[in-house]
This record gives sequence, structure tokens and C-alpha cells, in this order.
Amino acid sequence: MKKVAVILSGCGVFDGAEIHESVLTLLALAQAGAQVQCFAPNVDQHHVINHLTGEEMAERRNVLVEAARICRGEIKDVKGLKAADFDALILPGGFGAAKNLSDFAFKGAECQVQPDVLAACQDFAQAGKAAGYICIAPAILPRVYGQGVEGTIGTDQATAGAFDAMGGVHQACPVDQFRVDEARKVVSTPAYMLAGNILEAKSGIDKLVEEVLRLA
Amino acid sequence: MKKVAVILSGCGVFDGAEIHESVLTLLALAQAGAQVQCFAPNVDQHHVINHLTGEEMAERRNVLVEAARICRGEIKDVKGLKAADFDALILPGGFGAAKNLSDFAFKGAECQVQPDVLAACQDFAQAGKAAGYICIAPAILPRVYGQGVEGTIGTDQATAGAFDAMGGVHQACPVDQFRVDEARKVVSTPAYMLAGNILEAKSGIDKLVEEVLRLA
Repeated sequence: MKKVAVILSGCGVFDGAEIHESVLTLLALAQAGAQVQCFAPNVDQHHVINHLTGEEMAERRNVLVEAARICRGEIKDVKGLKAADFDALILPGGFGAAKNLSDFAFKGAECQVQPDVLAACQDFAQAGKAAGYICIAPAILPRVYGQGVEGTIGTDQATAGAFDAMGGVHQACPVDQFRVDEARKVVSTPAYMLAGNILEAKSGIDKLVEEVLRLA
Repeated sequence: MKKVAVILSGCGVFDGAEIHESVLTLLALAQAGAQVQCFAPNVDQHHVINHLTGEEMAERRNVLVEAARICRGEIKDVKGLKAADFDALILPGGFGAAKNLSDFAFKGAECQVQPDVLAACQDFAQAGKAAGYICIAPAILPRVYGQGVEGTIGTDQATAGAFDAMGGVHQACPVDQFRVDEARKVVSTPAYMLAGNILEAKSGIDKLVEEVLRLA
């Protein structure tokens, strides 16, 4: 049984982890017989967005506490995540990946990755263990793997340009496919960067999970 | 193409809609080719639970605003839900069904249903349209359909007893099955009342969705 760590970035597409992508990832891993442990950074969200109106709310919420909603409380601080304890790592998307796990949404190619998240992701990279990055989460790949890492964030030119400016090699990818950097064992898929509905998101995520487990 | 209304009760198992059940319902409906519109009551949650610790938080959150996280903002106030516009109705579970859509979690057989939710559910009942109630959501069936309605909330004796005390006829049901009141076109399944993981929850929800669409 493969052991997979999943890093969530909150709970809700506009300020946290994309909920469909997160649940579809957990579902695909369960269907494949993998053993899953969720993690999130124990930090405040960048902000809280009212998902009905799209407006910012005058609230503070913690990424780890909110992400716990997606996994029914079964979640740990990413500070304790060690690659040695797992066979693979997966990061679902949502704006939380670009607002809480990093500041890519605000700084683009000048972004920084939250230190605990960066340490965990780099631990998997240095251990040569498989990893899957979904939706906008691949934006941090150049910070984790350095120059030359291959990945996709869909087809958006500005986002792809920032990925390349950081040292990555962006590859366009349709929603129902994935891209793989074989040397680094990194898999990525666009999901809701391109998906118009939950079925399209599922089509790429299912294949990403299968590929990550194949590489694990 | 069948049109299905889904009523959510927030976002998170302990104070709102169970996220896996909600996403699995949306997924099964999409896979069946149904057209979906989500709804929720525009009221404050009963309370806010920290899903990491299980403790109550000193916050107020709105059920409609939080439920919007599950459906990426595509949600409407349940006050505007009319059975005439849809072929069927589905309510996922989570404590929100027993804390926000009703006060069953606190008052058991003496519970009342939130007025806008009750009006919408009774509209489907009176129109003879199919409905599916998942997990703890079937607890409100006797208030919606009156004496003699058949349904399941799994196997918990206390909960089943309250269901019967309200005038329902409780039927035990394994996690991967459903129960149907053919005369009233009401389908119910235990999901996380019994499920130990997402695959078990999916097994019953998939069958419930299929049966609701058959009756629709």
C-alpha cells in the first residue's frame, strides 16, 4: 500500500484549496488503495473571500484549521511532514496554493513559498520521490526543483510566462491530460485552470494520481 | 436532461454540509448528465466548529456564504427554490443538516425545520417529485412528508427512535445501499452515518443519485 501525503491550502477555491480538486484527489487515491495523510501550513490565510459575492471579508482564518474541513479533521501541520514517511506527495490547487502556500497570486515570478511548505516539498524532491501538482500549484515547482523543471499550469500565457521566468519549462496541456518531468518524478495537470466542470477536472486528476502512484 | 436542486447546509462536517458527500453528489449528478443548481438558506450557522480541535469558535458564519465554497460560488438562496423549476431534489448530510437546516441535533424528535428549507422540501413533496436525503438529512423527512414516511439514517438506535417518534418509519440500511419510499418518491442512504471512508460514502450516494434520477 502506497503512502501519500496531500498538502491542502485552506477550504474554498477563492482563498484556499479548491474543494472539488481536493476531494477528487482523495477519492482517486482511495480508489487506488493508497493510504493518505493530509497536511497544511499552520498560518493565517492571506485573506478571506466571500464565495457568494467574491468580496474580501473582514475576518482572519487559519489555513490548517480551515483545511481540516475537507478531511473531516484528519490533518496535521505540514511542519511535521517528512518525505521519509511517504512514497509520494500531491498538492491540489485553488487560489490557496497561490495565496497561502506561496504569494504567486500577488508577486508572480518574484514569489516566495511558505517556508514549511517549501521545506516539505524540497524534502520529497531531494529524496527523488514522486510528486503531483494540480491546477495553479505547479507555479511553485521552479522554487522547489530549481532550473529546468517541466510542468503545466494549463494554457494561460501570463501564468506560463511567470513559470518560465522563474526557471521552469512550461508545457501546455489539455484539461484531461498531465505532463510529467520523468527525471524529477513530477506530474502536473491543469484541472480548474482549464476545467469548465467537475467531470473535466476529474479527467486530469484521475490520470495524475495514477501516474504519481506509478512513479512512487 | 434532468434538472436537480441540491440544498447545502454550510461547508464542513461538524457545522455544515459534509464536503465529501456534497462533492460526491455533485459528481454523480454530473456523471449522469443531470443539470444541477445548488441552494442554501441565507441564515447564520448555529455555530462554528474548529474542525482541527472540535471546539466551538467565537465566530459567526452564514450558511449560504459558506456553502458557496463547495460549489465555487454557483449557489442561490433556498427561499427562491421552486419545485416547478426542477425534476428532483437532493440534500447531502453533515451536522449542518441537523444544526442549520433544522435543530434536530439539539431537539431530536421535537425539532423544527428552517422555514425556507421546509417550504422548498414540502413543495417537492406536494408536487410528487423525487427527492434524495443523505446521511442525517433524512431526520427531517417526517416534518416534510408527515406520518408514515419511510427512510433510513443508518443503524443508530437513538436517532432512529427520534425518527419514529416524529411519525416516520425508520428502516435500517447498510452503507452501500439505499431505502426508497416508493409512494412518496423519497430515497435515503446512510453515507457518513455509517461510512468509515470516502469509498463507502460513495457506494451509497452513487446508488441514491441513480435511484432519484430514475424516479424523477
